[in-house]
Amino acid sequence: MNNIQQQEIQTAVDAAVEGINNDLGILWILIAAILVFFMQAGFTLVETGFTRSKNAGNIVMKNFMDLSVGSLMFWVIGYSIMYGGDTVLGGFMRDPFDLSFFSEDDWHNLFFQTVFCATAATIVSGAVAGRTKFSTYLIFSAILTTIIYPISGSWLWPFDDKAWLNNLGFIDFAGSTIVHAVGGFAGLVAAKLIGPRIGKYDNGKINVIPGHNMVLGAIGVFILWLGWFGFNGGSQLAFGGSDSIAVGSVIINTNLAAALGAITALFFTWLKYGKPDISMTLNGCLAGLVGITAGCGNVSAVGAAAIGIISGLVVVLSIEFIDKKLRIDDPVGAISVHGVCGFLGTVLVGVFAIPGEDFAGGLLYGGGFKQLGVQALGSLSMIGWAVLASFVVLFILKKTIGLRVSEKEEIDGLDIHEHGISAYGD
Amino acid sequence: MNNIQQQEIQTAVDAAVEGINNDLGILWILIAAILVFFMQAGFTLVETGFTRSKNAGNIVMKNFMDLSVGSLMFWVIGYSIMYGGDTVLGGFMRDPFDLSFFSEDDWHNLFFQTVFCATAATIVSGAVAGRTKFSTYLIFSAILTTIIYPISGSWLWPFDDKAWLNNLGFIDFAGSTIVHAVGGFAGLVAAKLIGPRIGKYDNGKINVIPGHNMVLGAIGVFILWLGWFGFNGGSQLAFGGSDSIAVGSVIINTNLAAALGAITALFFTWLKYGKPDISMTLNGCLAGLVGITAGCGNVSAVGAAAIGIISGLVVVLSIEFIDKKLRIDDPVGAISVHGVCGFLGTVLVGVFAIPGEDFAGGLLYGGGFKQLGVQALGSLSMIGWAVLASFVVLFILKKTIGLRVSEKEEIDGLDIHEHGISAYGD
Amino acid sequence: MNNIQQQEIQTAVDAAVEGINNDLGILWILIAAILVFFMQAGFTLVETGFTRSKNAGNIVMKNFMDLSVGSLMFWVIGYSIMYGGDTVLGGFMRDPFDLSFFSEDDWHNLFFQTVFCATAATIVSGAVAGRTKFSTYLIFSAILTTIIYPISGSWLWPFDDKAWLNNLGFIDFAGSTIVHAVGGFAGLVAAKLIGPRIGKYDNGKINVIPGHNMVLGAIGVFILWLGWFGFNGGSQLAFGGSDSIAVGSVIINTNLAAALGAITALFFTWLKYGKPDISMTLNGCLAGLVGITAGCGNVSAVGAAAIGIISGLVVVLSIEFIDKKLRIDDPVGAISVHGVCGFLGTVLVGVFAIPGEDFAGGLLYGGGFKQLGVQALGSLSMIGWAVLASFVVLFILKKTIGLRVSEKEEIDGLDIHEHGISAYGD
Repeated sequence: MNNIQQQEIQTAVDAAVEGINNDLGILWILIAAILVFFMQAGFTLVETGFTRSKNAGNIVMKNFMDLSVGSLMFWVIGYSIMYGGDTVLGGFMRDPFDLSFFSEDDWHNLFFQTVFCATAATIVSGAVAGRTKFSTYLIFSAILTTIIYPISGSWLWPFDDKAWLNNLGFIDFAGSTIVHAVGGFAGLVAAKLIGPRIGKYDNGKINVIPGHNMVLGAIGVFILWLGWFGFNGGSQLAFGGSDSIAVGSVIINTNLAAALGAITALFFTWLKYGKPDISMTLNGCLAGLVGITAGCGNVSAVGAAAIGIISGLVVVLSIEFIDKKLRIDDPVGAISVHGVCGFLGTVLVGVFAIPGEDFAGGLLYGGGFKQLGVQALGSLSMIGWAVLASFVVLFILKKTIGLRVSEKEEIDGLDIHEHGISAYGD
Repeated sequence: MNNIQQQEIQTAVDAAVEGINNDLGILWILIAAILVFFMQAGFTLVETGFTRSKNAGNIVMKNFMDLSVGSLMFWVIGYSIMYGGDTVLGGFMRDPFDLSFFSEDDWHNLFFQTVFCATAATIVSGAVAGRTKFSTYLIFSAILTTIIYPISGSWLWPFDDKAWLNNLGFIDFAGSTIVHAVGGFAGLVAAKLIGPRIGKYDNGKINVIPGHNMVLGAIGVFILWLGWFGFNGGSQLAFGGSDSIAVGSVIINTNLAAALGAITALFFTWLKYGKPDISMTLNGCLAGLVGITAGCGNVSAVGAAAIGIISGLVVVLSIEFIDKKLRIDDPVGAISVHGVCGFLGTVLVGVFAIPGEDFAGGLLYGGGFKQLGVQALGSLSMIGWAVLASFVVLFILKKTIGLRVSEKEEIDGLDIHEHGISAYGD
Repeated sequence: MNNIQQQEIQTAVDAAVEGINNDLGILWILIAAILVFFMQAGFTLVETGFTRSKNAGNIVMKNFMDLSVGSLMFWVIGYSIMYGGDTVLGGFMRDPFDLSFFSEDDWHNLFFQTVFCATAATIVSGAVAGRTKFSTYLIFSAILTTIIYPISGSWLWPFDDKAWLNNLGFIDFAGSTIVHAVGGFAGLVAAKLIGPRIGKYDNGKINVIPGHNMVLGAIGVFILWLGWFGFNGGSQLAFGGSDSIAVGSVIINTNLAAALGAITALFFTWLKYGKPDISMTLNGCLAGLVGITAGCGNVSAVGAAAIGIISGLVVVLSIEFIDKKLRIDDPVGAISVHGVCGFLGTVLVGVFAIPGEDFAGGLLYGGGFKQLGVQALGSLSMIGWAVLASFVVLFILKKTIGLRVSEKEEIDGLDIHEHGISAYGD
C-alpha cells in the first residue's frame, strides 16, 4: 500500500472524525445549556430564601420573567446584536439585521447564549429585591437582555477580528465580566437609584433583614454550583479530542474554586464573628464560582484554588463595605458576588493564566503586567458600559413610571399588592 | 487509487460512523430520560405547592408511587402492550406476549418510555388532589400505566405500519396527546366522578382554595421546563448528523413556546384581573410546553412561539371555564394544562407544520385541511379511549372500594388519616 | 483490493473509533459526575426534611462542607491514596506521593471520584444530626475523605493486581460497600459514641422525633434517585459499543430496584402499621438504590427487582431494630439505608450475579457459595476498617474537643448557637 492510498484513507477517516466531533460538541453544548437553564431555579431559591416571605412570589415572578422575556428578546434581537455578521457604529455592536451569521445548524448555540443572557438579567433581580415595581423591573430586564448585555458581549465573544477586545487578547472564558460583572454592576446602579428597603438604614443604624428560608437558599446554591459545570464547561464550545480534556480541566477548576470559596468564607467569618456564618459561606461559594468563570480555561487547578480563596475573602469584605460604608441595600449580596468578584476574577486571569501558544501568561507565569492590563481594561470597559446604560435606562424609568412601590405596598409585602396573593398559605 | 478502493474505504468509514451515531443516540436518550425522570419531582412540587399543606404528604406519596408502580408495571406488561412485535384484537393493541421486538440492546428505550408512562399517570394526581382515597388512586395509577396509556400509545409510537394512526400520517412528536391529553382527560373523568373538595362550591358560590407554597410550585415549574428539554428533545430518538441539528431545533421550539406561554398568561391576566397572576403565569408556561410537544419537530421557531401564545391564552380561559361553568374541581389546573392544551397543541400541528418530504404541511403552509383533520381525528380517538377506559375503571372502583375519603378525613387532611403523620412539623 | 489494504483501512478506522469511544466515555463520566454531585442537594433535603427545623441550617452547613472539604482533601491527598501508582504498607493503601498514575487527561476521573468520596462523608451527617459539634464534625469529615474512604477504596477500585480484593474477584460495581456501607458504618460508630438526642430515649421510653418537612425530604429522595443514575451508570467508566448497552442495563436495574424498594416498604408498613408510612417508603426507595449499587452491572432486571424487594423489607426491620433494640439514635435512618443495605446489596451479588467470562456467577446461577463468601469477606473487611478507623478518630475527638454540643445548645437548636441565626424567618 502506497503513501497516496494511506493519505486517502486518513482523509476519509479524518472527515468522519470531524463530523462526529461536531456532533459531540452539539451534544455537550445542549446539555451544558440545559444545566445553565437550571441556574434560574437556583437564583430563584437563593433570592427568595435570602429575603422575606412577604415578597417571595414577586421574586419568583421576576426570575421567571427574566427567563421568559430573555428567551424571547434574545432570540428576536439580542442574539444578532451580539453575534451578527457585521459590526455597526464603528464596531460598537453587531448589525442586528445582518443575519448571515446564523445558520439552521446553529440552534444549540442560540440556546446556549440565550440561557447565558437570562442569567445576566436575573442577577439584577436579587439586588433590587423587596421594593421594586414589577412593571419597571420587567422593562429593565427586557432592555438588559435585548441591548445592554448583547452589546458588551459583542466586544469579545464572537471571537473574530471585529471584536475589539478579542483583538486585544482579553480573556473572559465563560463570562466573569460579560455575564456576572455586567449583571452585578447593573444591579449596583439599580440598587443605588431605587434606594434601600424601609427599615434597612434607620437613623444611622444598619439593620440586618434576615432571609426567611436558609434551606431553600442553600439548595439554590447547590443548583447554581451544579449549573456552573455547564456554564463554564460548556463555554469550551466544543467536545472531542483535546476539547474533552479541556472540559474536564475546566470542571475541576470550577469545582475547586467553589469549594475553596466556601471554605475560605466559612473560616474567615468564624474568625471574624466567632461563628461560621451560613449566608456568607454560601456567598463565598458563589464568589469562587464567579471568580473562576473568566479563567477556568487558562489556569491550573492550583490557580483555580487560589482564585477561590481570594474570591471567598473578598466577597465577605465587599458585602460589608457595600452595606456599611456605601450603604447600598443589596438584600442577597449580588453586587459583591457577581459584580465585584466578576471583576476580580477577570483581572486575576492576568495573574494566574498559564502561558499558551499565542499568549505570554499571567504575572506569576512570567508574562509580566501586560495581560493584567488587558484584563483590567476589558473588564472595566464592559462594566463602564453596563453602569452607563443601566443608569440612563433606570433614570428615565424613575422619571416616568417610577422605580419603587409605595411605602404601604413595601411594608405589606409585594406579593399582596403586585400579585394579589400571598406566596404562602395553609 | 481506483474507485473500488475509495468505495471500500467509504464503506468502512460509514459503518464506523453508523455505530458511533448509534452510541450517540443511546447517550442522548439516556440523558433525556434522566431529565424526564426529574419531571416527577417537578410535578410533586407543583401539586403540593398549589394545594393545601394538610395534604402535602399524600400528594408526595401519590407522585412517588406513580413513578414506582409505573416503573414496575410498564416493564412487566405495559411496554409490550405498546411496542410488542405484533398486534392483537384487530390492531387495537400489541401482543404483550410477543417479546420479539425487545432486544438486550434496548434498555435505553425501555427507560425512556417508562418515564414517559409515569408522567401520564402523574398528571391525574393533580386533578384529584385533596379528597381521593390513596388505595383507590394506587389501583387507578397501576391500570393507567399497565393498560390505558400503552394501548393508545401503540396506535402511533411504534411508528410501523401496524400502528393505524401512523398509517394515517398523524403527528404527535413527543406526546401532546399520547401523554398529556390522555393523562389530562383521565384526570377530567376522575375529578368529575370523585366530585369537588368540600368547600369548593358552596351554596352556588365558587371559592378559591389557595395553594400553600407558591415558591415550591414555581420551582416545580422550573424543573418541568428543564425536564421538557429531555421530553421533547429525546423524542428525536437519535443523535448525530441531521438528528443533532433537529434536536437543537426541538429544544429552541420547546423553550420559546414555554416562554411565550408564560408571557401571554402574565399579560392576559394583568389585563383581565388588573394584576399579573402567579399561578396562571406558571400554568401558562406549562400550557406552552404541553402545546408544543406534538409539533416541536415539525414547526419553525416562529410557529413554536405562536403555539406558545395560543396555549397561554387558552389555558387561562379553560381553567376559568372548567372551574366556573363546568364546576369541576381541578386543584392545580391539570385538565386545562395537559388535557385541553394537549389536544390544542396536537391540532395546531395541522396549522403550523412545515411541509416535509412525504408530508404536505399545515394549513398556513399550503397543506390544506387534510393534516388538520388527521390531527383532530388522532387526538380525539386517543382522548376518547382515555375517557372511556378511565370511566369504566373508576366507576367500578366507585361501586366497590370507593373513590373518596370520608368527610372527616378530608377536613382534617389526608396526611393524618391516610399516612398517620403531618408533612410539616417543627 | 487486497487483504493488506483492507486491514490497513480497518486499522485506521478502528483507531478513530477508539479515540471517539474515549471521548464518549469522558462525556458520559463528566455528566454522570455532575448527577452524582447533585446528590449532595438530595442528601441535604432528606436530612433537613427528616429532622427538626431548629437544626436545619446546621445540617445544610455540614452537607455543604462535606462537599467543599471533600473536594479539597480528595484532590490534595485522597485521590492518590486511593489510586496512586504503587502500594505502601504491604498493599494496605496506595502511595500518596507516587503521582505517576495521574495524567492531565484524567480530570474527568478525578471529578467522578471526588463526588463519590463526598457522598460517603455526607452519609455520616444524617446519623449524627441534631447534637454534634460543628467543628468536630468538620474534622471527622475531613479525615474520612482524606484517609478512611480512600484506603478501603484502594483495595478494589484501581482494578489492578495490586488491589487485593480485586485479585479475589470481589464485586462492588458502584460502591454499595465502598461508599455506602463505609459511610453508614462510620455513621453507626459516630451515632453510638455521640449518644442519642435529648428526649429520644426517656426513662426507657422510645420517642419519635418527627421531621419538620416531608415535602423537602421527598424531593431530596427524588434528587438522590436521579443522581443514582449517574452514580451507577457512570461506574461503567466508559461509553460506546457494548459499554453503551451495559450502561442502559445498569440504569434499568437501578430504576427497578428503587421502585421495588419503595413499593415493598409501602406495602410492608401498610400491613405492619395499618397505614402506608411516608418516611419508610422513601427510605425503602433509598434502600433499593443502595442495595443495587454493588451488583447493578452483574444482575438481570429480575435480579435487580429482587434486590430492591429484599432491601425494602430489610430497611424497615433494620431501622426498627437499631432504634428499638440497639437504641442508637439515627435521625434519618442512614445506618440502615446505607450501612445495612450496603452490606446486604454487596452480599446479594453472590446470589444474583449472572455468570460472566471469568466469573462463575451467584448462588442462583450455579456459581455455588464461592462468590457469596468473597462478597461477605470483601464487604466485612471494608466495614471493619471503617468501624475501626472511625472509632479511633472519634474517640480521640471525644477526649479532646468533644463530640456533642451542650444540653442548652441542643435544646435551643444548633442553628442559633453554632451559626448565630435561625434557618427560618418571616
